[in-house]
Amino acid sequence: MTNEFAIPRSVEWKETYIRILNQQKLPDVTEYVDLETKEDVFDAIITLKVRGAPAIGITAAFGLALSAKSFEVRDLSDFRRQLADVKAYLNSSRPTAVNLAWALDRLTDSIRDATSINEAKTTLVHEAIQIQIEDEETCRMIGQNALQLFKKGDKIMTICNAGSIATSRYGTALAPFYLAKQKDLGLHIYACETRPVLQGSRLTAWELMQGGIDVTLITDSMAAHTMKEKHISAVIVGADRIAKNGDTANKIGTYGLAILANAFQIPFFVAAPLSSFDLQIENGDQIPIEERDPDEVRQISGIRTAPEDVPVFNPAFDITPSSLISGIITEKGIVTDSYTEEIEQLFADCQLS
Amino acid sequence: MTNEFAIPRSVEWKETYIRILNQQKLPDVTEYVDLETKEDVFDAIITLKVRGAPAIGITAAFGLALSAKSFEVRDLSDFRRQLADVKAYLNSSRPTAVNLAWALDRLTDSIRDATSINEAKTTLVHEAIQIQIEDEETCRMIGQNALQLFKKGDKIMTICNAGSIATSRYGTALAPFYLAKQKDLGLHIYACETRPVLQGSRLTAWELMQGGIDVTLITDSMAAHTMKEKHISAVIVGADRIAKNGDTANKIGTYGLAILANAFQIPFFVAAPLSSFDLQIENGDQIPIEERDPDEVRQISGIRTAPEDVPVFNPAFDITPSSLISGIITEKGIVTDSYTEEIEQLFADCQLS
Repeated sequence: MTNEFAIPRSVEWKETYIRILNQQKLPDVTEYVDLETKEDVFDAIITLKVRGAPAIGITAAFGLALSAKSFEVRDLSDFRRQLADVKAYLNSSRPTAVNLAWALDRLTDSIRDATSINEAKTTLVHEAIQIQIEDEETCRMIGQNALQLFKKGDKIMTICNAGSIATSRYGTALAPFYLAKQKDLGLHIYACETRPVLQGSRLTAWELMQGGIDVTLITDSMAAHTMKEKHISAVIVGADRIAKNGDTANKIGTYGLAILANAFQIPFFVAAPLSSFDLQIENGDQIPIEERDPDEVRQISGIRTAPEDVPVFNPAFDITPSSLISGIITEKGIVTDSYTEEIEQLFADCQLS
Repeated sequence: MTNEFAIPRSVEWKETYIRILNQQKLPDVTEYVDLETKEDVFDAIITLKVRGAPAIGITAAFGLALSAKSFEVRDLSDFRRQLADVKAYLNSSRPTAVNLAWALDRLTDSIRDATSINEAKTTLVHEAIQIQIEDEETCRMIGQNALQLFKKGDKIMTICNAGSIATSRYGTALAPFYLAKQKDLGLHIYACETRPVLQGSRLTAWELMQGGIDVTLITDSMAAHTMKEKHISAVIVGADRIAKNGDTANKIGTYGLAILANAFQIPFFVAAPLSSFDLQIENGDQIPIEERDPDEVRQISGIRTAPEDVPVFNPAFDITPSSLISGIITEKGIVTDSYTEEIEQLFADCQLS
């Protein structure tokens, strides 16, 4: 039995509707929402009920395929026109999410050679399902590759939620924990709560518990003391964007963990699919860091915890230089050392295969 | 004009009552509470309306003196008996607070040679006021000594609240900021919010703003990125207990800041009075670390932000080894190097003077 525990899924195709996990209500309420129209899908994305770049892309793809199923048109060119309208509409829900546009493009590309409306409708559904299947396979491979870095009983620290509910399944940084559970490797996870938005306490702690994985929650400020006192074996995190030289943008707090891991001589790993690499960017200095609403820091869940008008610095991400990274784990293998050369090689190999 | 800004005070003696700042209501409401009976004082301490070891000691001393003023007894031995009862009662409010017992002992000691009830009543009030004056002077001297370590325009990071409202006035780690303001040195402070209890956002941000000092609030997870991007000049923190070799117990998160400061080659200072040294303790390994209620991590201001039953590690303090400390700033001078020898010398000098 490899599935005796339940790895939560964020998106499921149900033929006549899409079922999503409402991540806005976690961890208090585990609620699934059924999306039946393009407006439902748009709303779920814009209100962050579904989050995580891959999960957003999958939801939007299902949304487009679902909407197209009900098109009542006379010919294929009308079908394509109406599809373009719905695509533009869904695409506008979170314009900066790269996976969203990528998934929708892939769907419209898939019916380029369709010869009937019925064929087009079926192809769109198959392509959306294919995106989900491929993402799950990518995550599983990342988990598989990461797993060889850990041994039974290891205590591993993570931050934010690079988990199953941000992807099709398994996640990236959390993927090895699910595979370890299947192999009864008994890893123990320390999840940093991840202020200001608390993805660690709200999402990672919840999803690991659902998956039957031992998890202990700490505040971000406890990382150093925990590394020392609990003998942390490794740190593993996800990535928002990776530069050509391996410098990695990820949730604010990641850089600090990398410095601490270095001080304690603990390996520090990044787990991410090849799609997270941005080879147009030479190094981390060129990655822009978004600054968010100061009230995220002044408030917690709507409760004010600081003076109303206190100046705040609220960067959403930080950059971990590749010199602090022990390895970047992708679905195609691990790069560990001369990052620029190894990353180049990784992409060259992929194009050949 | 050296007092054009208002350094908040936590405790004031008003002859017939004690006025305290209700720190439980900060930063939402700036409320002062008047304590008129020993029960009022007990309640203020036990409900954390007043916090910070020195501030608690001062409040309890005023409470004992205030209560004694109304004793209606026939002779001095009755007076002493009644005083011992009130002392025991106040002492039980927070039994682990060292300054509380110390201040109350000092009051009862002060009337050892009293020859009349009236003299005893007056002496108790004078002694309590003296404790407050001495604490203010200690804090001012710490601030003075720390000030020479900073220059105009420096950007300084701190954690927790080692501030005016935790002491008689000025605080320890925050003292140099108030003195710098008086000299128009223009320091800029970055306050870490200090999860789980948020003393940084609730108290430090508030009190520095009251004092007219430039402060920017960040989450603890932003420390590394902020050190790099904002070119932080130094870190300064308070101390809960300092061992003979300089190892320092302070609010959880301090150790991490010290490692980060070290990585960025930024000086890391501890500011504390001689009373924070525990010369019975050889090094940090011998300092016990209190673990607190898991709900402090699972909840914020009573709002649940994590799964109800998620395991939590919640150490209240961590230990910063003296090897990471650039200097310990006391009212009698700064120790910077061979901590064990220099600390020994500091105490020897004080006993001679």
